Amino acid sequence: MNYKNKSLSVFLSVLLTSFVCSAQDSDVFKRSTTTQLGKNFPQVNDKGEVRASILAPNATKVQLDLGGVKYDLVKDEKGVWTGQSQPQDAGFHYYQLNIDGASVPDPGSMYYYGAGRWGSGIEIPAPDQEFYALKYVPHGLVSENIYFSKITKAARRCFVYTPPGYTEDTKKCYPVLYLQHGSFEDETGWSAQGKANLILDNLIANKKATPMIIVMDNGYSTKPDGNNGGNDKASVFEEVLMNEVIPMIDAKFRTIANRENRAIAGLSMGANQTMRIIMNNLEKFSSYGGFSGTPNYPSSDAIDPATFLNGSFKEGKLINDKIRVLFLGLGTKEGSPFPASIGAFKNMLDKQGIKYVYYESPKTAHEWQTWRRNLKEYAALLFKN
Amino acid sequence: MNYKNKSLSVFLSVLLTSFVCSAQDSDVFKRSTTTQLGKNFPQVNDKGEVRASILAPNATKVQLDLGGVKYDLVKDEKGVWTGQSQPQDAGFHYYQLNIDGASVPDPGSMYYYGAGRWGSGIEIPAPDQEFYALKYVPHGLVSENIYFSKITKAARRCFVYTPPGYTEDTKKCYPVLYLQHGSFEDETGWSAQGKANLILDNLIANKKATPMIIVMDNGYSTKPDGNNGGNDKASVFEEVLMNEVIPMIDAKFRTIANRENRAIAGLSMGANQTMRIIMNNLEKFSSYGGFSGTPNYPSSDAIDPATFLNGSFKEGKLINDKIRVLFLGLGTKEGSPFPASIGAFKNMLDKQGIKYVYYESPKTAHEWQTWRRNLKEYAALLFKN
Repeated sequence: MNYKNKSLSVFLSVLLTSFVCSAQDSDVFKRSTTTQLGKNFPQVNDKGEVRASILAPNATKVQLDLGGVKYDLVKDEKGVWTGQSQPQDAGFHYYQLNIDGASVPDPGSMYYYGAGRWGSGIEIPAPDQEFYALKYVPHGLVSENIYFSKITKAARRCFVYTPPGYTEDTKKCYPVLYLQHGSFEDETGWSAQGKANLILDNLIANKKATPMIIVMDNGYSTKPDGNNGGNDKASVFEEVLMNEVIPMIDAKFRTIANRENRAIAGLSMGANQTMRIIMNNLEKFSSYGGFSGTPNYPSSDAIDPATFLNGSFKEGKLINDKIRVLFLGLGTKEGSPFPASIGAFKNMLDKQGIKYVYYESPKTAHEWQTWRRNLKEYAALLFKN
Repeated sequence: MNYKNKSLSVFLSVLLTSFVCSAQDSDVFKRSTTTQLGKNFPQVNDKGEVRASILAPNATKVQLDLGGVKYDLVKDEKGVWTGQSQPQDAGFHYYQLNIDGASVPDPGSMYYYGAGRWGSGIEIPAPDQEFYALKYVPHGLVSENIYFSKITKAARRCFVYTPPGYTEDTKKCYPVLYLQHGSFEDETGWSAQGKANLILDNLIANKKATPMIIVMDNGYSTKPDGNNGGNDKASVFEEVLMNEVIPMIDAKFRTIANRENRAIAGLSMGANQTMRIIMNNLEKFSSYGGFSGTPNYPSSDAIDPATFLNGSFKEGKLINDKIRVLFLGLGTKEGSPFPASIGAFKNMLDKQGIKYVYYESPKTAHEWQTWRRNLKEYAALLFKN
């Protein structure tokens, strides 16, 4: 498809207009990018305040429940309740309304799976929002791939991003990133909230990342007998990933099926799971990204590499030889225990002389903007010679 | 991927158990297939009754709003409100809760776009539910395909179903069905509510349908100047489909790009739009399916083929020569004006000696079970020699 056309400049200016943050307009509320088509609320402004509004003529108390705070809304003479929050961090947040004690989704927002439920999400403008914006660049596909696991004896699903050009050049093969979500999320998280596909579309268009396939599966796996590997939640998922998902992806998609062209990453619980997976399967993966999570979570005690994770980190030189990119990231505003826990892990790496890339997302906490930025940094390092 | 394995019989019995409707159990409520993971409500039984339940300790009135009726829920001593509906038709229905005058999604259900909003959906057991069930058969992919329209100067999206085997046999090309949603729905409808992918996976596994690609786009299209083609809502969408979508699909996917291998269909508004599209573009499509909709909607007056749709139906013999399958379907319980309107259209076809297939879905109205069944009937007729 040829993207060059006479109206390109008109097109770009139309697209970009919606993304320009004017300092004078920082108080002006406008619909969020998560506000449903045809609905006026929820709204956000550049300060990060969220305004919610709902018709509830017979209610006695309506609240906006966001960021751990319940904000009272105020009713007008028509029975419409409106109110707003304090400023929120940049990016995506789960939220809900509370009507006379009932926690419910906001009928004005779109819905996302996270925090253990399908429910409302709000998008706060960010100074760097361009990197995950839907832009006038070639786009990849995100494909829903249903499969049956003989291990869990259940139907499962992964989403597979194939980069721009994948469908057209049917000879070319691609490296693969296996990218996992966090707790109380699922296989939809990285594409829906995380915008992984748009982040890669933009990196690839800017020639910052090597075109790659991304596989986003569900980190929760249980065997029919209830066995999920005990305390080590990676175990059953690790079995499914290594024995079923990777062979399936290599059979169904044009992958370069070797360790140099296979990377793994995850956020929070996913970071923990995927580090255990790579250290158990170093012959299968060559790069790792841990976004807001390490396998010593939640401890911040000094780590003994002789015993930790079956001594996986005992030989620093071996890790340096085998792992191309070892990436650790978090947000500067993350709460306990993440900074200390990740800090203890970094200390161990330093002690072992293990090289790694460390990234701190400015002014974000344990939330999606941190993970979008982590993905952007990490993906740009992968599969480079 | 080899689906044969020793545990197949165990697997099938586990899968099938969830689908067996025992007559003695017809009153027993259980979670709907649209109930969220980890939630107990909403629930349904084989009689089609829906039970909703929500904690709303300070509310004074909570209702289940389903099928045009508001059912009062009753509060218990813990502040949990519970209640149920009258029996509903088989299949999928949009619904919501009402809490003290506020219409909100049910926090226990998954969400779907239709009726002009993202909101709750409920799935009622059906005697024929096997045909759209997630079964132990090879599955196709459903891919989200983002593109820019130079006609509407906006980003658009279609979902593309590629059948089982598409990714493995990279030489084989496939016929294409363009399948459109109804009013107040969007490009997610046919896969999310309609289960088009599962219907085709099952038809293909049973060798009832020729493997095909299905393209599901958004029937709403407007030009930047606000022009949507006036009263003829097909116009801008027709431009986008003919000039942008079809060439894009033929370039990106392995299609057999000729009229014999291109079909079109739609439900309700989509049936109306797509009939206008095929009659304007007979050199591009060879089969048509109209599910609960015809282009004379909402009129039931006798149709004059000399003038109707620019005289498209004037020459019955020509239509019979050119169109391989002309399919019209609806539900036996559909309300006015659909039966009379579709009836008037059929009368015109009869008068013109135009052959068509006519199907009535038993005991369903203007709703998704009708359209799932219509798709099943229609798809089995397509691309057969």
